[in-house]
Amino acid sequence: MSSYVRDILSRYDLDNLSIATLASHSSLQIVHGAKKEGFRTLLVVTDDRLWFYRQFRHLVDDFVVVKRWSELCSEDVIEALRKRNSIFVPHGSFIEYVGIECATRLPIPIFGLRSLFPVEADQHAKMRLLGSAGIPIPRVYSVDEEPGGLVIVKLPGAKGGRGYFIASSKGEIVQGLRKLLDEGVVRSVDGVMVQEYLVGVTAYFHYFYSPVLDRLEITGADIRYESDVDGLRRIPVKKLLELGLEPTFTVVGNIPVVLRESIMPVVMDYGARFVEATKTQLPPGVIGPFCLEAVIGRDTGVRVFEFSGRIVAGTNLYIDGSPYTYLYWDEPMSVGRRISREVKLALERGVLEKVVT
Amino acid sequence: MSSYVRDILSRYDLDNLSIATLASHSSLQIVHGAKKEGFRTLLVVTDDRLWFYRQFRHLVDDFVVVKRWSELCSEDVIEALRKRNSIFVPHGSFIEYVGIECATRLPIPIFGLRSLFPVEADQHAKMRLLGSAGIPIPRVYSVDEEPGGLVIVKLPGAKGGRGYFIASSKGEIVQGLRKLLDEGVVRSVDGVMVQEYLVGVTAYFHYFYSPVLDRLEITGADIRYESDVDGLRRIPVKKLLELGLEPTFTVVGNIPVVLRESIMPVVMDYGARFVEATKTQLPPGVIGPFCLEAVIGRDTGVRVFEFSGRIVAGTNLYIDGSPYTYLYWDEPMSVGRRISREVKLALERGVLEKVVT
Amino acid sequence: MSSYVRDILSRYDLDNLSIATLASHSSLQIVHGAKKEGFRTLLVVTDDRLWFYRQFRHLVDDFVVVKRWSELCSEDVIEALRKRNSIFVPHGSFIEYVGIECATRLPIPIFGLRSLFPVEADQHAKMRLLGSAGIPIPRVYSVDEEPGGLVIVKLPGAKGGRGYFIASSKGEIVQGLRKLLDEGVVRSVDGVMVQEYLVGVTAYFHYFYSPVLDRLEITGADIRYESDVDGLRRIPVKKLLELGLEPTFTVVGNIPVVLRESIMPVVMDYGARFVEATKTQLPPGVIGPFCLEAVIGRDTGVRVFEFSGRIVAGTNLYIDGSPYTYLYWDEPMSVGRRISREVKLALERGVLEKVVT
Repeated sequence: MSSYVRDILSRYDLDNLSIATLASHSSLQIVHGAKKEGFRTLLVVTDDRLWFYRQFRHLVDDFVVVKRWSELCSEDVIEALRKRNSIFVPHGSFIEYVGIECATRLPIPIFGLRSLFPVEADQHAKMRLLGSAGIPIPRVYSVDEEPGGLVIVKLPGAKGGRGYFIASSKGEIVQGLRKLLDEGVVRSVDGVMVQEYLVGVTAYFHYFYSPVLDRLEITGADIRYESDVDGLRRIPVKKLLELGLEPTFTVVGNIPVVLRESIMPVVMDYGARFVEATKTQLPPGVIGPFCLEAVIGRDTGVRVFEFSGRIVAGTNLYIDGSPYTYLYWDEPMSVGRRISREVKLALERGVLEKVVT
Repeated sequence: MSSYVRDILSRYDLDNLSIATLASHSSLQIVHGAKKEGFRTLLVVTDDRLWFYRQFRHLVDDFVVVKRWSELCSEDVIEALRKRNSIFVPHGSFIEYVGIECATRLPIPIFGLRSLFPVEADQHAKMRLLGSAGIPIPRVYSVDEEPGGLVIVKLPGAKGGRGYFIASSKGEIVQGLRKLLDEGVVRSVDGVMVQEYLVGVTAYFHYFYSPVLDRLEITGADIRYESDVDGLRRIPVKKLLELGLEPTFTVVGNIPVVLRESIMPVVMDYGARFVEATKTQLPPGVIGPFCLEAVIGRDTGVRVFEFSGRIVAGTNLYIDGSPYTYLYWDEPMSVGRRISREVKLALERGVLEKVVT
Repeated sequence: MSSYVRDILSRYDLDNLSIATLASHSSLQIVHGAKKEGFRTLLVVTDDRLWFYRQFRHLVDDFVVVKRWSELCSEDVIEALRKRNSIFVPHGSFIEYVGIECATRLPIPIFGLRSLFPVEADQHAKMRLLGSAGIPIPRVYSVDEEPGGLVIVKLPGAKGGRGYFIASSKGEIVQGLRKLLDEGVVRSVDGVMVQEYLVGVTAYFHYFYSPVLDRLEITGADIRYESDVDGLRRIPVKKLLELGLEPTFTVVGNIPVVLRESIMPVVMDYGARFVEATKTQLPPGVIGPFCLEAVIGRDTGVRVFEFSGRIVAGTNLYIDGSPYTYLYWDEPMSVGRRISREVKLALERGVLEKVVT
């Protein structure tokens, strides 16, 4: 925790903390969980969505209404958050919404590892962190290299999975990138990443690292529901070929999954490696929820192609607890609630500085 | 509520109401929920299935055994239902089982909007209602029109998704219809609907409109598990083409899903529009559970291609509550239970006429 | 129960029973459930996984560490299990891990039907048992027969779904077998089974037969998540054909599903037939959890292609109860917990011999 954040925290009334977040992504889960743990809650909400979130006003003590998400870093909003003694919970859409600069400098105590944000914003830095942790990752190719097999091409500016495509030759990569530029899906191909395409099935592993208990918990797993790839199977193959329809990967929802128990030690091992790598490279290391995004091959080998250092939307499946959280807690424990539980445990033990940065 | 239903209700012992339904579809959920709310329960059951439902006799106070579902409207059955002070809950299979005439005139108080039944029985009227509510729907073509792209052809007589097929030209539509007639899947093509085929992924949004609380709740979402479209991926593409296997869409189950929170305001908005449209066009408007059946495109745009004005089978996933119901209720709340809770709330406030027609 | 097992049991301290299993498959669920029912728990664990299971030590009273699973039948381990008055719960990986010989002769009371193990180890005996129960099964072809349509070829030595392939002619069968031998996936094609390939969707029905209550319960259903068949849809069809990618079926996880209520009587009927067949052919018949693995066709007809006589991994989805268990129990009831509940019920009624063999 920087001295700056420590200073803000020193002026907080710790008996009246609020759990605050942006009204989107997993915010209902976050405020639901905070209420369960006895905290006040605050949502920063854009005016066009206020009507929606008002329907859950039994879960929200205060709304701070903005016109644009970027206003989070305005003086008024910061003042409002501080007045309510807010601990801010950054969720999966946080950086996308407010920008990396506001996210990093937000002068409010953040539940999570602030120094991980710039890493998360950079595909190449992400893969380096995973690789240095000793977690198996796909091979990365340079754009002008002829790939040895199937590759997935990822554009940093693309949102919700649009602008990802599969190719198997340098020619196809160039052609695909040109198409995305022409169609205006992305404005530039800076930071494009060409990754070995992992054949197998995707799975998203949810973790929670507790600095207070010094414990890594597996909190769940999910599969993403993507448009239109998950819908194309409804169209006869002959028609797909006839019409040249190719899948897109816009995440629109999440489906629950449990993994073979024999894979769980691997999942736990990779999670522990991630915690250790962040402790070493970005002390004090990851705080709270994170997610490793993996492909499980036909040999049940697990390789990680992406991570999120914050709460992921797949946790919304488990507002009443997941098959995994019941192994740790004898009560319904969503990740949203787990965050507030961690804050509560930290408060009780007088170690709040362990969970905010 | 018609004066006729009001009259029946006036002779009921309101301290001893029964929640009644047909033993199929979501009936176990409905009686389970009714028991949780302290009601007596009654199942109208066909004799061949009685042995099965008897295994849940701890959830069912009375069985009324019939040979055919259409006997629901017989004097004996009506008498038995009235004697038990029954509120009848129409579920997704209700009209299919007893026919539109019996469904509409059933001289028992129905939890739900009776005047919506004829609309539900008519694909074209359904789409008009959705369209007039300002909910985005697919384009509808006339049968002899050359469609501009992929279309789905739906036959009203087809059950469980059989008799739906995809085509991309007038010739294919005609050919497909002939095949269904020849194979005896349908007897006639009257009322056939040719709809623009929406590319994207399907999602079924479950709602509950509470006339007592004047509140629209999102109670869940699901994906349908369909035979054999969800199985064909197991067969190598080369074989699919070789053998000319084309998918069919018989619903055999449901899979849980949660949606991106940023899509939820859209989902809520469409639900509210549906409630308003029914209030205006079919006063007093929809009562209790309904479902909008949608496709979410690669741009996350949501379009609705179908609705159900009653409890849908996807709610069976959430007998112990869904990720969404926990946002409203601090206890496990299935839609089956929610129905009985609404009856209870109406009883307590002396406004039972608000929830039956 | 053999007199041998009866003898062991007679020396047990019945007030201090332990529920024991191998640390894999569904063991966390089993010990979680045992704790809920007030039992001590014991895991036999391989030394390389001990670190993982230690993280759940709040659920495990005793670890018995081994180098190889086969040590289960060593004197030391048996002694350790007996000292803790262990009832051993055989899960889905049990026979695969310790071998049929150790599994069958293990001199510890087993919760389950020991005489079913040899049947489970033999694909042909399994299908005979299902067939004799009057449960619809796929046609079985001999290897040198020209099949009438699509077939699935299953090799007994293949693990986790690898080594299953689809063919539609005798030539393809021979070619596929040769490939598996060449690639070393299997060492021999002894016991190969060529089954009619059922077109439709797979579903796994979980049951629990209670000898104490003489009641068959449906405890859940799941769909398997398989690598890489569930991932191939992400690759454009054109590329699949270009690269000649064919699906494999390695189970890596499970996805929840509920079935149309109108299919449930069929599911219950088949389960009851299975119970009866085992009572007749393998008295006293199945004890506790079993699973019928089925394909549901486009006509909603159900055919069973496989069974498991023990707890299956799909039950891990329902550690806090499934949509079905809530119909029987007014509390969260996993199959792991259900096992311990059955032991408890048997103890209370003094009929422990009914649930162990």
